[in-house]
Amino acid sequence: MDCVFCKIITKEIPSEIIYENDKVFAFLDMTPINPGHTLVIPKAHHENLIDTEDDLLCEIILTIKKLAPAIMKGVNAKGYNLGVNSGVVAGQAIFHTHFHIMPRFEGDGHHSWSRKPYKDDEIKEVGDKIKAQL
Amino acid sequence: MDCVFCKIITKEIPSEIIYENDKVFAFLDMTPINPGHTLVIPKAHHENLIDTEDDLLCEIILTIKKLAPAIMKGVNAKGYNLGVNSGVVAGQAIFHTHFHIMPRFEGDGHHSWSRKPYKDDEIKEVGDKIKAQL
Repeated sequence: MDCVFCKIITKEIPSEIIYENDKVFAFLDMTPINPGHTLVIPKAHHENLIDTEDDLLCEIILTIKKLAPAIMKGVNAKGYNLGVNSGVVAGQAIFHTHFHIMPRFEGDGHHSWSRKPYKDDEIKEVGDKIKAQL
Repeated sequence: MDCVFCKIITKEIPSEIIYENDKVFAFLDMTPINPGHTLVIPKAHHENLIDTEDDLLCEIILTIKKLAPAIMKGVNAKGYNLGVNSGVVAGQAIFHTHFHIMPRFEGDGHHSWSRKPYKDDEIKEVGDKIKAQL
């Protein structure tokens, strides 16, 4: 399979590995938003979060819980953003499930996305449309 | 405890509830980055991801897996971003663990953060500093 993350897992492509066990793999993003930006991925190939098996998702989130404090201490950051981009429109570039752990620093130039408040009863209408799909 | 999310869970503060079970609660963010922006939180109060019990984190990530497709269908989005802001420097405003599910649309005006490539051997030095904390 022509997946760059699968090749990183097998070490056919070298990476700066932070952690691995039998199910998950974590390595430094080569083009970080800040130093220490880490990707946590399942070793099994799945396109995105929704396709990933339940036990693997649990393993990933518990690995993030383990790694985030070490990343913050390692780069002396006071906080971090966890992020998943799912779908091209959301910025997903590699179609192998990956979670970004991104250390943050004062004045690093990254800003939150602007908010777009709901108008009138729009919030209830949107809620109803979502609940109809559950 | 004076936590706005705890009051939303008890319904002392009203919200547009998307889903709840005995452990987790999901509702629409009132100031969304796009319509359908949903927050998934544990019912138990924990400040952030690192403080949250393992079984609760698994329950949260599996709830996200369940809700994300319904959110996308409900608002007709082709993708979504999952995000956690941990710490003031990362944009955390409410100190009760919460995961943002943010539906994305073409031309919605939200852009990825800029990248800052490593120089020379910096990536290995950063990796070593993180691994020293594990």
